[in-house]
Amino acid sequence: MNTSELQATFDRIRSNKAFELFVVAVIIASALLVGVKTYELPPTPQRLLGWLDHLITAFFLTEITIRFLGEANRRDFFKNPWNLFDTLIVLISLIPIDNSDMALVARLVRVFRVLRMVSIVPELRMLLNSLIKALPQLGYVLLLMFIIFYIYAAIGATLFETINPELWGDIAISMLTLFRVMTFEDWTDVMYETMAVYPLSWFYYLSFIFFTAFAFLNMVIGIVVNVMNDEHEKLLKQQALEAHEPTIADLYAKLEQLEQQLAERERR
Amino acid sequence: MNTSELQATFDRIRSNKAFELFVVAVIIASALLVGVKTYELPPTPQRLLGWLDHLITAFFLTEITIRFLGEANRRDFFKNPWNLFDTLIVLISLIPIDNSDMALVARLVRVFRVLRMVSIVPELRMLLNSLIKALPQLGYVLLLMFIIFYIYAAIGATLFETINPELWGDIAISMLTLFRVMTFEDWTDVMYETMAVYPLSWFYYLSFIFFTAFAFLNMVIGIVVNVMNDEHEKLLKQQALEAHEPTIADLYAKLEQLEQQLAERERR
Amino acid sequence: MNTSELQATFDRIRSNKAFELFVVAVIIASALLVGVKTYELPPTPQRLLGWLDHLITAFFLTEITIRFLGEANRRDFFKNPWNLFDTLIVLISLIPIDNSDMALVARLVRVFRVLRMVSIVPELRMLLNSLIKALPQLGYVLLLMFIIFYIYAAIGATLFETINPELWGDIAISMLTLFRVMTFEDWTDVMYETMAVYPLSWFYYLSFIFFTAFAFLNMVIGIVVNVMNDEHEKLLKQQALEAHEPTIADLYAKLEQLEQQLAERERR
Amino acid sequence: MNTSELQATFDRIRSNKAFELFVVAVIIASALLVGVKTYELPPTPQRLLGWLDHLITAFFLTEITIRFLGEANRRDFFKNPWNLFDTLIVLISLIPIDNSDMALVARLVRVFRVLRMVSIVPELRMLLNSLIKALPQLGYVLLLMFIIFYIYAAIGATLFETINPELWGDIAISMLTLFRVMTFEDWTDVMYETMAVYPLSWFYYLSFIFFTAFAFLNMVIGIVVNVMNDEHEKLLKQQALEAHEPTIADLYAKLEQLEQQLAERERR
Repeated sequence: MNTSELQATFDRIRSNKAFELFVVAVIIASALLVGVKTYELPPTPQRLLGWLDHLITAFFLTEITIRFLGEANRRDFFKNPWNLFDTLIVLISLIPIDNSDMALVARLVRVFRVLRMVSIVPELRMLLNSLIKALPQLGYVLLLMFIIFYIYAAIGATLFETINPELWGDIAISMLTLFRVMTFEDWTDVMYETMAVYPLSWFYYLSFIFFTAFAFLNMVIGIVVNVMNDEHEKLLKQQALEAHEPTIADLYAKLEQLEQQLAERERR
Repeated sequence: MNTSELQATFDRIRSNKAFELFVVAVIIASALLVGVKTYELPPTPQRLLGWLDHLITAFFLTEITIRFLGEANRRDFFKNPWNLFDTLIVLISLIPIDNSDMALVARLVRVFRVLRMVSIVPELRMLLNSLIKALPQLGYVLLLMFIIFYIYAAIGATLFETINPELWGDIAISMLTLFRVMTFEDWTDVMYETMAVYPLSWFYYLSFIFFTAFAFLNMVIGIVVNVMNDEHEKLLKQQALEAHEPTIADLYAKLEQLEQQLAERERR
Repeated sequence: MNTSELQATFDRIRSNKAFELFVVAVIIASALLVGVKTYELPPTPQRLLGWLDHLITAFFLTEITIRFLGEANRRDFFKNPWNLFDTLIVLISLIPIDNSDMALVARLVRVFRVLRMVSIVPELRMLLNSLIKALPQLGYVLLLMFIIFYIYAAIGATLFETINPELWGDIAISMLTLFRVMTFEDWTDVMYETMAVYPLSWFYYLSFIFFTAFAFLNMVIGIVVNVMNDEHEKLLKQQALEAHEPTIADLYAKLEQLEQQLAERERR
Repeated sequence: MNTSELQATFDRIRSNKAFELFVVAVIIASALLVGVKTYELPPTPQRLLGWLDHLITAFFLTEITIRFLGEANRRDFFKNPWNLFDTLIVLISLIPIDNSDMALVARLVRVFRVLRMVSIVPELRMLLNSLIKALPQLGYVLLLMFIIFYIYAAIGATLFETINPELWGDIAISMLTLFRVMTFEDWTDVMYETMAVYPLSWFYYLSFIFFTAFAFLNMVIGIVVNVMNDEHEKLLKQQALEAHEPTIADLYAKLEQLEQQLAERERR
């Protein structure tokens, strides 16, 4: 069997529906394994889970190898970011772990195997892609929001540091406190504390809530409008296609034809 | 009176407007009964309520029987899921209850009689149907959200278990804690506790809030766009119907007719 | 001066721009008066405010009388609900108050004078009208939400009454507690308390949050779609009017005319 | 070198891309400086930061001077509100500060230098402009909301003052408490406290939440509809431009032309 035949065989395997479903089943199993491990277990099942874990790692390695060997042009394999992500997750979980410090990291890496669910199911991949695509459009709104946070945090850290250093100690902690205020989580406790020293500091909080709410609203509306416009265009195109309905352009063409006919007759 | 005549009589009864209104009145009465029973009552009214309850159960049984016998083809009766639901509710409340343990369950079943309101009022039935219809479209967003929850819960249960086992004991409790964080309910208390051990754990919470908010937004926008498109199409059709306005297709037909006329004249 | 001349004079006064502005100024003054009275004041300014209050009451009485006498057909005056509202507010504040018990009620009535702002400024009146107009359309969603609340409250009052009678004592208190859960206000405290007895009661809260959030979303989308459709129709009509642009109906008429011309020529 | 040549030179500098980028870099540096100053620092780096601060102030002064001298008509410079804002920020940070009281104010002014980011990046300037432009349209909704707050605050300050003067002492404090209720922040604590005295006061809170939520929803929908309509019009115009597609007006013109042709032939 030469390389090209081998590649064709692997390609056939990876496009096989049963193979796909089995991979999804193994990913679900690995997800359940991750969940089960968070419970206190007696030693026997724990050893069993350890073996199951090795089995899953071995299967994932085999699967990635099949996908890689099934690719006609092997360089294209890593051009797909989802393939890169899959390979990385599988390779990292191969690293042997002995000491207890690394055991924690190793367990965390195994958690990310659940994300392979997203890379396997096309609908989830599309959802995530659309989320990622929406981000840069919102870049400037996020920047504006960051500036609002930064300015308020700088003011807060300057004025309120002596009142409660745990909430306003430096600009980083202040930004976390402001995020808390934005989520309305016990924000009045924070406010009443500073109002005891600066009675007018309610204006600081209310203006901050107003600005961030407004910027947030702006962001949401931005996304909604983008999505709506896309949907609207899609809908219009689809309607025209489905109904085979004549468009205004068709009508125009028809009229021009008529005009020509009239002109020709005139010439005769 | 033969069976067919009986069926016609029952059909007339169940389509009767007064009967419909009386059924609604009895359902409201049964709902009030459920509410009144949550108050502490002296023995005399309590016995009275017990009798009223038996009366309502008897009425519901009669009503369902009338509906069933009024159906021309009796097999079709159970094809309607609302009929099945009604029958089930009525039958379960027939089970006699003696010991105090089952009394609680029996009272809970009586609560669900209030839901018969939904099965009787067509507008409410339509509302619920539209809710149920919207769910599968959102399936993948809900799956993505579940994956986000699962991964974060696994990480939380791994890292924070020793800090507070009541919040991060296993993956199920961690998911409940994360749902709490998503609703912003005292989420900073949870965060400050883990930040005392892992000072960078704020990133865990902020990224989780960001991802779930984004996925949630996506879901809401998905519903809005679906509803909007449906409404938009309905509106367009309705406008065309109401105004008897010529469409572009009508114009096109007219032009083709004109063209034909011209062509015919030419031939002569 | 006869009655008809008097009516014309009063009508001229009430349509006068300066009079309108003066009324608004007095309403704002009465609003400020209401605000100032909530502060602790020494006796002298307090007596002054009392006199001012009498002055404003006298002015409002005069104003309403002018509006009433200015109406051509006096029966029409009370057909306008805003006039009725204004008259009621003014008449109630005329009732003399001696004992301290009624003083509180009298002060509260004076607060509602601020609402005359809404009845005077046409833009605010329109806003409130549109709010009131939107309500009946949402009637069934509100009914569905009430049924959800009622069922969950009945279950809560049945199961959790012994755990915390202050939160789940009867169906009314339970509904208030559920409203609290819906606003996410310390809802985990309520949940953890019942989970100590019924470990699966988290399902009760999560399903409730899910149902109410869904019904609420449905309501919001309902309003948005209604407003959007109205706006869309308005926009379309306005665009057509502004541009004097030919519509498809105009085109159709033109084509029919052409066709007739051709037919006529043929006949000759 | 005469004045006009000098102006041209300065104009060339301020339009220079490298100059623009350098200004952005200095603004970012000044923002970082503001952030770093909120941390506890040993004296040596603190002195260094002081010098850096003077350097940045000097640079900003030079930059504004260049911008001003580069303007052809110097009166136009201050017609741009962003230029006015920039000049103000720079001039205020020039005021020498000796005593510790003013030091705090001076540090706060330096914080606002970060806002120069908004005045320099055109996209952020546009975002802020659109926010400011949206405000007056919402004026009446904000007024209605203020009236709702004012009336409820007056009622609250009248009825609940004796229960908890810290929350309901006067109308201003009551409005702050109501804002807290609107954000659902520990609002049940506020409610349970007053319900102990007035058991029906839950109606006060629930109706307030209902009214403000409704007014808020109205405001959000108002913004969304405005933005949508703007986007929709933009989209329609753009589509027509991009596709060079004939419009109904073009069709109409074509038909009139045809009609004229037919009429002319008839005349012959």
